[in-house]
Amino acid sequence: MKKEARESNVLKAKKSEFSEWWEQILPAADILDNRYDTKGLWVFMPYGYSIMLNIKSLWDGLFRESGIKEMYFPLIVPLSYCEKNESWWKGFKEQAFWVSGKSEEAKHILRPTGEPAMYPLFSLWIRAYSDLPLRIYETVFSYRYETKQTKPLIRDREIGPWYEIHTAHSTKEEAIQEIKEAERMNDVIWQKLAIFPLKVEKPIWECFPGAVGATEYYTLMPDGRVLENGSLNNLGQAYSKKFDIKFVDAHGKEDYAWQTCTGNGERYLGGLIATHGDDKGLVIPPEIAPIQAIIVPIYYKDDKEKVTKKALEIKKKISSIARVEIDLRDETPGSKFYDWEIKGVPLRVEIGPKDIEKKQVTVVRRDNGTKMAIAEAKILKEIPELLEEIQKNLLGKSKSLLEGSIGIAETKGDLEDSKKDILKFLWCGSERCWLEIKGIKEGYELFGSDLQESKTEGKCIICGNKSKKIGYFANTY
Amino acid sequence: MKKEARESNVLKAKKSEFSEWWEQILPAADILDNRYDTKGLWVFMPYGYSIMLNIKSLWDGLFRESGIKEMYFPLIVPLSYCEKNESWWKGFKEQAFWVSGKSEEAKHILRPTGEPAMYPLFSLWIRAYSDLPLRIYETVFSYRYETKQTKPLIRDREIGPWYEIHTAHSTKEEAIQEIKEAERMNDVIWQKLAIFPLKVEKPIWECFPGAVGATEYYTLMPDGRVLENGSLNNLGQAYSKKFDIKFVDAHGKEDYAWQTCTGNGERYLGGLIATHGDDKGLVIPPEIAPIQAIIVPIYYKDDKEKVTKKALEIKKKISSIARVEIDLRDETPGSKFYDWEIKGVPLRVEIGPKDIEKKQVTVVRRDNGTKMAIAEAKILKEIPELLEEIQKNLLGKSKSLLEGSIGIAETKGDLEDSKKDILKFLWCGSERCWLEIKGIKEGYELFGSDLQESKTEGKCIICGNKSKKIGYFANTY
Repeated sequence: MKKEARESNVLKAKKSEFSEWWEQILPAADILDNRYDTKGLWVFMPYGYSIMLNIKSLWDGLFRESGIKEMYFPLIVPLSYCEKNESWWKGFKEQAFWVSGKSEEAKHILRPTGEPAMYPLFSLWIRAYSDLPLRIYETVFSYRYETKQTKPLIRDREIGPWYEIHTAHSTKEEAIQEIKEAERMNDVIWQKLAIFPLKVEKPIWECFPGAVGATEYYTLMPDGRVLENGSLNNLGQAYSKKFDIKFVDAHGKEDYAWQTCTGNGERYLGGLIATHGDDKGLVIPPEIAPIQAIIVPIYYKDDKEKVTKKALEIKKKISSIARVEIDLRDETPGSKFYDWEIKGVPLRVEIGPKDIEKKQVTVVRRDNGTKMAIAEAKILKEIPELLEEIQKNLLGKSKSLLEGSIGIAETKGDLEDSKKDILKFLWCGSERCWLEIKGIKEGYELFGSDLQESKTEGKCIICGNKSKKIGYFANTY
Repeated sequence: MKKEARESNVLKAKKSEFSEWWEQILPAADILDNRYDTKGLWVFMPYGYSIMLNIKSLWDGLFRESGIKEMYFPLIVPLSYCEKNESWWKGFKEQAFWVSGKSEEAKHILRPTGEPAMYPLFSLWIRAYSDLPLRIYETVFSYRYETKQTKPLIRDREIGPWYEIHTAHSTKEEAIQEIKEAERMNDVIWQKLAIFPLKVEKPIWECFPGAVGATEYYTLMPDGRVLENGSLNNLGQAYSKKFDIKFVDAHGKEDYAWQTCTGNGERYLGGLIATHGDDKGLVIPPEIAPIQAIIVPIYYKDDKEKVTKKALEIKKKISSIARVEIDLRDETPGSKFYDWEIKGVPLRVEIGPKDIEKKQVTVVRRDNGTKMAIAEAKILKEIPELLEEIQKNLLGKSKSLLEGSIGIAETKGDLEDSKKDILKFLWCGSERCWLEIKGIKEGYELFGSDLQESKTEGKCIICGNKSKKIGYFANTY
């Protein structure tokens, strides 16, 4: 293998050139290596994977607390299971990875989503209302033979780690309540990621194959497009009828279970990098950051020992209140600053001879570049305060960015002409108008409607019928 | 799908009928569901998966503390990578799962082990001695198209979760040191699993394809056979030469890296169940148990409220020092006892009206059935002591069991006739004698040699040559 000469930690592109920036930032910040010899497959580097695992432990904690049990279902799914729900199979057949022993005919695929491996077992486990609710999840990688252009953390052939929650209930109402619970948990995750997403309702014809309704999250990307980032699907009884998931209720009557499924994963990380990053690299929100503060000792030859000793002392102190590391590599301070800025560590703590003299440290915020001196005696109080401020600042910025990107369209013509990334407008709720909107501007579409209706009734900007629904229009990934 | 009538939580077989016991215990204790419609694939149930995840967090903690970084490499491996080391490829080719898009010729396999997906990247990352040591691991599922009979947690087609540690070093000595570190960490894990394994050295002809040496763990199974349970492989420069993993040393000289790899996972769980289980079900060592104490309130109609209230109070108290649950299901105490015995919860805490009167709880140990009263006031002190005692008792039993199963063979005839499960004897270390031993008794083989040599020199029981090596002979899985 020829060793490619690559300046692996160099970020040249501006964030405004999003595609180039994305391609450079992921290897430069040690998120992924993109040199694996197969399309759409990447290697997760230690730093990137540690951020991903921090996000994963967020969801593990939330699901466990909510009483959802973790399980694992096989990756390899027999066709007999896949074919049970033809609308699911139709949706995933073309992009399946087929798998078999050498020179055998393939009768299995790799899981593209969890349903067909799970629901035949649900059918065995669920018999009476006392077996319900069933609330389980798994965290896995899933596989789709994407023919579209792949983009790491956005459109992969190996998707994950991601979770799928699957639940079954004895009533329709309980299933709807479960979607609310999934929404509550997702809102906590977004808070920790310091991202303000757009939450929309999907009409039935745009739902996950077989589903009867969905709430979906979208995050705004730097190129003005929106990325679907998590789905909460109400499956109704569509799957339970196909997979024969029946229960006997308290009165002895048989009925099909009401189901939901919810999934997301690596796109949380994609959204995080895209939302907060800047021309210098990543900006990781403190709640998620594997390293919240990086200590860089600054010395000339004579001071080295003294400064290093003090820096180690400060590290020990900070380690009681934050995730802290010290950079003792044999490099210039400038090159260390550069590396940790690319990696997006929230706080840089510099310690030099003058700081020691003044019994202080010099702290630089990654989110806004502010530099300040903090008295050694106040470190334990001020570092956590700063981390909290950074978290708030990032969330606030994300909110302003999203809100600032949304404009109002009052006519069909506005959809074409407006300079805003996202347009909201009144829509009658019909499939016909939905489809008509799709053609207006290349790549743009009506991608969902607001969870709340408009307070006053108006007219659909396409057909002119009375309408209270608020639709959203944007260029989607 | 027809719902199979299965009494899913019934264990009828005795542990002495190991095959039947194994088949029944895994579904009965909620470890696995064995009704997934493909050979060698099982569904991990919530209780079983929570034990597995407890074992996983043990290894995560140990590896992190040792400075080994977690990463993730793709599941799907191109043939161009597989073919780089022909001895690896020869070892895994026949049992590969092949994968492709529909009606395409398969040019990829699912990872059977990590090397071919990892080492082409190692070749890109490692250039100078300053890039070394490289110490990383991943936790994944791996895939082998087993044609032999499969047995859950022992021989699967989907193996995992398991970890693989892979390291690269600038000297041979450092690689050997790394094996010692892997050994230290494994010894900690075995301690927590309360299992006393047999640690052996493998001769080069029995090593992992391409390796130059290995330390391997074996655990004794109830049927007297031994199960390979974790390998620490010294790869020497065999793989670095195939994958072109070169570095320039401090003097400007180029050399190939020295590598090691270490792996294990679901077999820890298999070993745990097989070692500690009994005729009543699982016995989980307290250090690993997802539930360390289960509270069962015992009441007649009139007492229900009072007893439940007290039981909840006791639960709150115990939760500060142990992982505790309460069983409030509408079942008889007897049927609750049965369920938690099958699940192997270390302590059962019964609370009835008489206990309340006497300000005590009644505690039953799962490992030896001992029943005792503990004063309410002493719970916080005595429950942790009991858990510690159980852990020690299980480890002690495992040690006695292993030691009691080992006999000494002084002649070749002893290998045939002895009633002991494992025989140790002097062996000259030659491949010829190794192979000759294999034919002596069906299924039995010389499976490794002691890490320490015998103190006094004797004669190889096959060829009669001078010898200090101690070989082990048993029926292996």
